Amino acid sequence: MDAEQLRENAHKMVDFIADYYKSIENFPVLSQVQPGYLHNLIPDSAPHHPESLQNILDDIQEKILPGVTHWQSPNYFAYYPSNSSVAGFLGEMLSAGLNIVGFSWITSPAATELEMIVLDWLAKLLKLPEDFLSTGQGGGVIQGTASEAVLVVLLAARDKALKRVGKNSLEKLVVYASDQTHSALQKACQIGGIHPQNFRVLKTDSSTNYSLSPDSLAEAISRDLTIGLIPFFLCATVGTTSSTAVDPLLALGNIAKSNGMWFHVDAAYAGSACICPEYRQYIDGVEEADSFNMNAHKWFLTNFDCSALWVKDRNTLIQSLSTNPEFLKNKASQANMVVDYKDWQIPLGRRFRSLKLWMVLRLYGLENLQGYIRNHIQLAKHFEGLVAQDLRFEVVTPRIFSLVCFRLLPPHNDEDHGNKLNHKLLDDINSTGKIFISHTVLSGKYILRFAVGAPLTEWRHVNAAWEVMQDKASALLARLSIE
Amino acid sequence: MDAEQLRENAHKMVDFIADYYKSIENFPVLSQVQPGYLHNLIPDSAPHHPESLQNILDDIQEKILPGVTHWQSPNYFAYYPSNSSVAGFLGEMLSAGLNIVGFSWITSPAATELEMIVLDWLAKLLKLPEDFLSTGQGGGVIQGTASEAVLVVLLAARDKALKRVGKNSLEKLVVYASDQTHSALQKACQIGGIHPQNFRVLKTDSSTNYSLSPDSLAEAISRDLTIGLIPFFLCATVGTTSSTAVDPLLALGNIAKSNGMWFHVDAAYAGSACICPEYRQYIDGVEEADSFNMNAHKWFLTNFDCSALWVKDRNTLIQSLSTNPEFLKNKASQANMVVDYKDWQIPLGRRFRSLKLWMVLRLYGLENLQGYIRNHIQLAKHFEGLVAQDLRFEVVTPRIFSLVCFRLLPPHNDEDHGNKLNHKLLDDINSTGKIFISHTVLSGKYILRFAVGAPLTEWRHVNAAWEVMQDKASALLARLSIE
Repeated sequence: MDAEQLRENAHKMVDFIADYYKSIENFPVLSQVQPGYLHNLIPDSAPHHPESLQNILDDIQEKILPGVTHWQSPNYFAYYPSNSSVAGFLGEMLSAGLNIVGFSWITSPAATELEMIVLDWLAKLLKLPEDFLSTGQGGGVIQGTASEAVLVVLLAARDKALKRVGKNSLEKLVVYASDQTHSALQKACQIGGIHPQNFRVLKTDSSTNYSLSPDSLAEAISRDLTIGLIPFFLCATVGTTSSTAVDPLLALGNIAKSNGMWFHVDAAYAGSACICPEYRQYIDGVEEADSFNMNAHKWFLTNFDCSALWVKDRNTLIQSLSTNPEFLKNKASQANMVVDYKDWQIPLGRRFRSLKLWMVLRLYGLENLQGYIRNHIQLAKHFEGLVAQDLRFEVVTPRIFSLVCFRLLPPHNDEDHGNKLNHKLLDDINSTGKIFISHTVLSGKYILRFAVGAPLTEWRHVNAAWEVMQDKASALLARLSIE
Repeated sequence: MDAEQLRENAHKMVDFIADYYKSIENFPVLSQVQPGYLHNLIPDSAPHHPESLQNILDDIQEKILPGVTHWQSPNYFAYYPSNSSVAGFLGEMLSAGLNIVGFSWITSPAATELEMIVLDWLAKLLKLPEDFLSTGQGGGVIQGTASEAVLVVLLAARDKALKRVGKNSLEKLVVYASDQTHSALQKACQIGGIHPQNFRVLKTDSSTNYSLSPDSLAEAISRDLTIGLIPFFLCATVGTTSSTAVDPLLALGNIAKSNGMWFHVDAAYAGSACICPEYRQYIDGVEEADSFNMNAHKWFLTNFDCSALWVKDRNTLIQSLSTNPEFLKNKASQANMVVDYKDWQIPLGRRFRSLKLWMVLRLYGLENLQGYIRNHIQLAKHFEGLVAQDLRFEVVTPRIFSLVCFRLLPPHNDEDHGNKLNHKLLDDINSTGKIFISHTVLSGKYILRFAVGAPLTEWRHVNAAWEVMQDKASALLARLSIE
């Protein structure tokens, strides 16, 4: 590591990356390579002698980029977005440059303290209850992903419950969520040893727009109590992965609270929208939550990974996740004067991720961030309008944020055929490489998802995307009518 | 995200980071700030309007850097190193630039395939058994940290065992390791619901140089079997955190195997040295292991985080960690034609981390990497010699790799006083800001740790560090003799 070598080579890399962004629309959005494509393009073993950076950059251009699915393309509308921005990128650079490992306060006080401050900033933008601020018993922490966020709070809740009901009652603990909840919760249950038969996946349907009905939760809890089980964890979602359904936090939270359960709110995607006053209503009731999560790396211009988790009682996390080996002991930690984030997360080591979130908030400012969110929602609304005008299609669930769930209507109302048709349409659209969208299934129906949220997406990209879809639909329907 | 804005600002950031490396020796290595120092330096809330990059860079210089503990300083000798390099940094930049989320093959085939190939490269450099290569039933995967590596294999082993002995036998499962094993294993047990009383921490002492004795393992297993418990997991370490002790893999592995247990080898730190033929012997017996872990982000020039984990049977990981929600289904995954790394790890999302490891291996080449390791070991040997020449000190355990464990001998053989003395010496040394070292406790003795491994460290830094220690020892002993 020589400073001047770093300077020279990193300037080259900056230009490589800037050029990539300039030409990003030239690549197929969804990589069109076949499984195993790279095996024959790369040697079998590492080189003995050094190679030049230029060689490597050439390989990246010729061998790696064809195998990349371009999440930053303006024509990327799949899953949910993974935002990159100038500010987020600069923060990543700086974090990689300092390359500290901030497990304890002492290993870089600034890393811990900036994270506490910046998560307080974000909590205030979201108007989270004061209990979530670091100034009290709670606080925020950056996790890698929403999966890790739900896992750590599930573990905290598990251990808190076991303390109350006895260590040998693990098999009686019950978790509740809707069938629209992210699969990360199921995985967290597997990891934490929750019995699979004690994971209640409560059914939703179009009557509640796929949100969890408080009645069905209350009934399930009451059934479980009757047979001697112990309800201990509820996960609600604001902006589900399939269709951005919004669970009614206040009613659900009241039920959880009256049963002494931990109440976690997963707003991984939609949380970002709640910095706008007009969308803040969707997390009304968050006051009842024990923990709240949103992914700044999805739709908040902060490069992956940066998942913000807040808890009201940080001691529950610490009691579940702390270890205190001799080699990490130090005055500040022993005196309980500081936060050691190692005890709030699964891994020991952690990167200086608050830098990028801090830079996003400062380089853009609240007003621009609100404008950014509103623009995407406007684009999605526009797309929804386009779909509604084409009678061959239907919008399946009411659009709330920047996701539109829609499908091609099966000719002659032949529902059996509808799923195959839309599956085929999805493949045809994505095979063009012009745009990338994804799918889900709601009430047995195969649905296409159009998620606006890439930073580069403009009106023209949405219009062009719709043209691709219409063209592919026309071709598909024409083929069908011939067959 | 505008390509030209990115270019302009990222060039500025490159210069900022290169200048940081040029001036890195001017900072106190261990940050000297007090808890809470940042609170008064930063506003209470995020700005409404954008701020300039220059403002932010000024704040980083004035407010953040004083709170950074400089892991990249040539005078950093604490814990274990966290290497940054030009190649590693460039890889981080590119990964942040592409900003893909590679949970499934389809979300960027290159991310999955390059990771498989590069971990095969590294496995070959380490001469790992072929079973660990991706060409068979095994394969490598990049985890964030060694903590996550040991957690995922513990979970795989747990679920494999429960499949055999019945789901309700969790409370009978027993884990074995030495008292020198990293605390990450204890944490993994807590997370996975292993009963705390079933975590066997086997005592080590100086007679085996703090390595785990196969006899003590065999005895513990036999005792547990007698009372109906189920031994299922053994973690051995090559290069323990306290003193780089090396557990005898072959003998331990045989015992594990004959008892049907999972055998994990944690070589997080020392694994890097095993690319040199003369150090490869320390992982002899890895043939018996079910999983093997080394941290490329410690001593292998790959910026944090990059922890390489290999398993012989990838299906055990997948069976424990996979979920298959509708919204992630795709042709390649459904046809079982590809690896989906989401099923090998805790989180769903994952960064394109193989880029940096690939760039390290190519920009430096095997010979330079071997030279890099050997140089650090030479430096540590040199330091060991310096300590041995000063009769006020003792080297506590034989040096094997690049860590020297030593202490100031208590005057008049007053052992009770020895711990306080060395604790005080540590504080005095680190308070200078000139160097940063850390400590451990072995057989009740407080020990100082001098870990060589920062990329910028040269002979002169080691010599100067020893002078600081001698000066501080002299001053401390003089004060004591006056008191």
